[in-house]
Amino acid sequence: MRILLVGAGGVGSAFTAIAARRDFFEAIVIADYDPTRAEKAAAVDPRFTAGQIDASDAASVTALCQEHGITHVMNAVDPIFNMPIFEGAFAAGADYLDMAMSLSKPHPEAPYEKTGVKLGDEQFAVADQWESAGRLALVGIGVEPGLSDVFARYAADHLFSEIDELGTRDGANLVVTDDDGNEIFAPSFSMWTTIEECLNPPVIWQDGAWFTTPPFSEPEVFDFPEGIGPVECVNVEHEEVLLMPRWVDCKRATFKYGLGDEFINILKVLHTLGLDSTEKVRVKGVEVSPRDVVAAVLPDPATVGPRMKGKTCAGLWVTGKGKDGADRSTYLYHVVDNEETMREYGHQCVVWQTAINPVVALELLANGTWSGAGVLGPEAFDAVPFLDLLTEYGSPWGIKEL
Amino acid sequence: MRILLVGAGGVGSAFTAIAARRDFFEAIVIADYDPTRAEKAAAVDPRFTAGQIDASDAASVTALCQEHGITHVMNAVDPIFNMPIFEGAFAAGADYLDMAMSLSKPHPEAPYEKTGVKLGDEQFAVADQWESAGRLALVGIGVEPGLSDVFARYAADHLFSEIDELGTRDGANLVVTDDDGNEIFAPSFSMWTTIEECLNPPVIWQDGAWFTTPPFSEPEVFDFPEGIGPVECVNVEHEEVLLMPRWVDCKRATFKYGLGDEFINILKVLHTLGLDSTEKVRVKGVEVSPRDVVAAVLPDPATVGPRMKGKTCAGLWVTGKGKDGADRSTYLYHVVDNEETMREYGHQCVVWQTAINPVVALELLANGTWSGAGVLGPEAFDAVPFLDLLTEYGSPWGIKEL
Repeated sequence: MRILLVGAGGVGSAFTAIAARRDFFEAIVIADYDPTRAEKAAAVDPRFTAGQIDASDAASVTALCQEHGITHVMNAVDPIFNMPIFEGAFAAGADYLDMAMSLSKPHPEAPYEKTGVKLGDEQFAVADQWESAGRLALVGIGVEPGLSDVFARYAADHLFSEIDELGTRDGANLVVTDDDGNEIFAPSFSMWTTIEECLNPPVIWQDGAWFTTPPFSEPEVFDFPEGIGPVECVNVEHEEVLLMPRWVDCKRATFKYGLGDEFINILKVLHTLGLDSTEKVRVKGVEVSPRDVVAAVLPDPATVGPRMKGKTCAGLWVTGKGKDGADRSTYLYHVVDNEETMREYGHQCVVWQTAINPVVALELLANGTWSGAGVLGPEAFDAVPFLDLLTEYGSPWGIKEL
Repeated sequence: MRILLVGAGGVGSAFTAIAARRDFFEAIVIADYDPTRAEKAAAVDPRFTAGQIDASDAASVTALCQEHGITHVMNAVDPIFNMPIFEGAFAAGADYLDMAMSLSKPHPEAPYEKTGVKLGDEQFAVADQWESAGRLALVGIGVEPGLSDVFARYAADHLFSEIDELGTRDGANLVVTDDDGNEIFAPSFSMWTTIEECLNPPVIWQDGAWFTTPPFSEPEVFDFPEGIGPVECVNVEHEEVLLMPRWVDCKRATFKYGLGDEFINILKVLHTLGLDSTEKVRVKGVEVSPRDVVAAVLPDPATVGPRMKGKTCAGLWVTGKGKDGADRSTYLYHVVDNEETMREYGHQCVVWQTAINPVVALELLANGTWSGAGVLGPEAFDAVPFLDLLTEYGSPWGIKEL
């Protein structure tokens, strides 16, 4: 297996730190728009080499694949670049993995009721071509989407006879401080992506169809395990809701994110002012996208690890009837402590938790445990070997009846 | 009198619309960085000509003054450009007027207790040179500062024997709607300046000295006249607090702005994220100041007039002992209705209310009613002819015992 990793940002460099401990691959070419970031990430392992790439240009992806005999393209950049990377990989005859799907577009007349272009629609539209070519696009294989989808498949196969709701619930008690120990606002994940997913109309699957709601709808306090405690969660547009119902029978699929009051207020203000916009505006002789400016003024999520404390939890709350036919309500989850990932890997917990899952998936693909063709979500594969290998990596998952 | 107007933005073009109805001047050269804005404002009167200027370059100001035989430079751009315009006017031997003073810098160790560089310090530092040269810099002659300072002088001369507090209080009930009639966020004044004055440490004069507080301190509900009603006001850094005590005896001078909850929240979020910063950041290959981006994404205050409804009030709440020695509490104020200024002048009320005062002041200087040399605030001059001429312009002021 020869991997092209596109993007040496927070998740990309955590991916390389985790992969460096495994022997299932022959080589990883780490490519970034900024070659110094790629070189820094490549320095840690003799199987790694650095390259320069323009992720917005499919031809640039194809050329790099061909130059290095790439078998698998691992996309670790913002999802705005999904389509050129996805297309560039296909043109090169490589398999493809990502951790977020092609972007949505709201319904032009009823954005908060009906779906427009859905997350992943552009990728699923060419699923036939991938299947015919015998090529695999494993989409949404981070932690959420990713591990959450694996949990959905595990719940359907081993815990439930009938599923009412597949409810992904994400929460944390992370705090970032400045040099003087004062708490500061510093998102632990890409602000660009956070704005995208939180301000888009949240999508919900119910009774065989998708619909949307206004942002931040249906607030709910969810009590997260392992000391994190209760966090206010709201509906957010997320890939799980689009992926799970395609392979797992359920009456309802939701995604709720424990944003907390402060973050919700910040996102609302950015939206009120139009600072969430990706359309370029002219500012004193130059053109910039306001959302890029917001991301640029905040601390780089990849660098906040040493000043961050707390745990993050990704998980799936499943309700329905258990294998015995009785009502069941179960939370399958994965908690990561920032102190541990910083000490063990030198990467903060949120990007680390995202990055470990595609490494596990690639290992299962490399050894033939997982195989397939087409555009497939993580729930299209057997969950057990994935969860076992994740535990073998030293990062066990948990289960709790609610 | 030959006037150079620097800046054909909201206030600048309202200034020209008001001046066009008066005959005290010979010519106005309207200069802007963007020559099309200048040409548009110049088209309305044969005494107006358009020019191009770089307000950040004193030599550019001096050259334009010399080219056109300018006697008075009227500064109508953001106060970040005050010093080059002020210096350029002096070098050209012209008198100078502005509506906001040179910028402050917070105290490096105790920003929310002590003053650092105060508003106007840079201008007052060279007051001797202006006085020796027999040149006048009339600083802070908009509405606030400006008319509020005139009120202070009027109160001291004609209403009070002893003043406890000179408390400028500014509030409005303005609402801006979009094409569908939905209320939108659209500041009625320069967002750059609003951020500057609201996020800087508010300054207060008390018992012979200035000190500062944290932003948004000492919230107070003030009941504004003529149907505006109660608005929550907070301390804001403003020139009146620096100007009034230099010429008018008082125990305390404050400025409180009726920002309202929504605006305060927005300003706090901008500050939390660092989007209030004027330091350029690198964003995908270009460099921009985040604050410039915030201003650029919002509607231009000069263009919101037709979609705005309501009134704005500028005024001064004076407490102390009246001429009869009894306790007195009086609000001197000036209310402008957006509907009227739009109908009469085609300019929205906030910029119109700012712009009318320097026109009145220039007329008093042109006919010799006001004269002086040095760096002087509006309270250095007799208030009565100013208030009479303002009334003659069709925009009377009011007085109310509280």
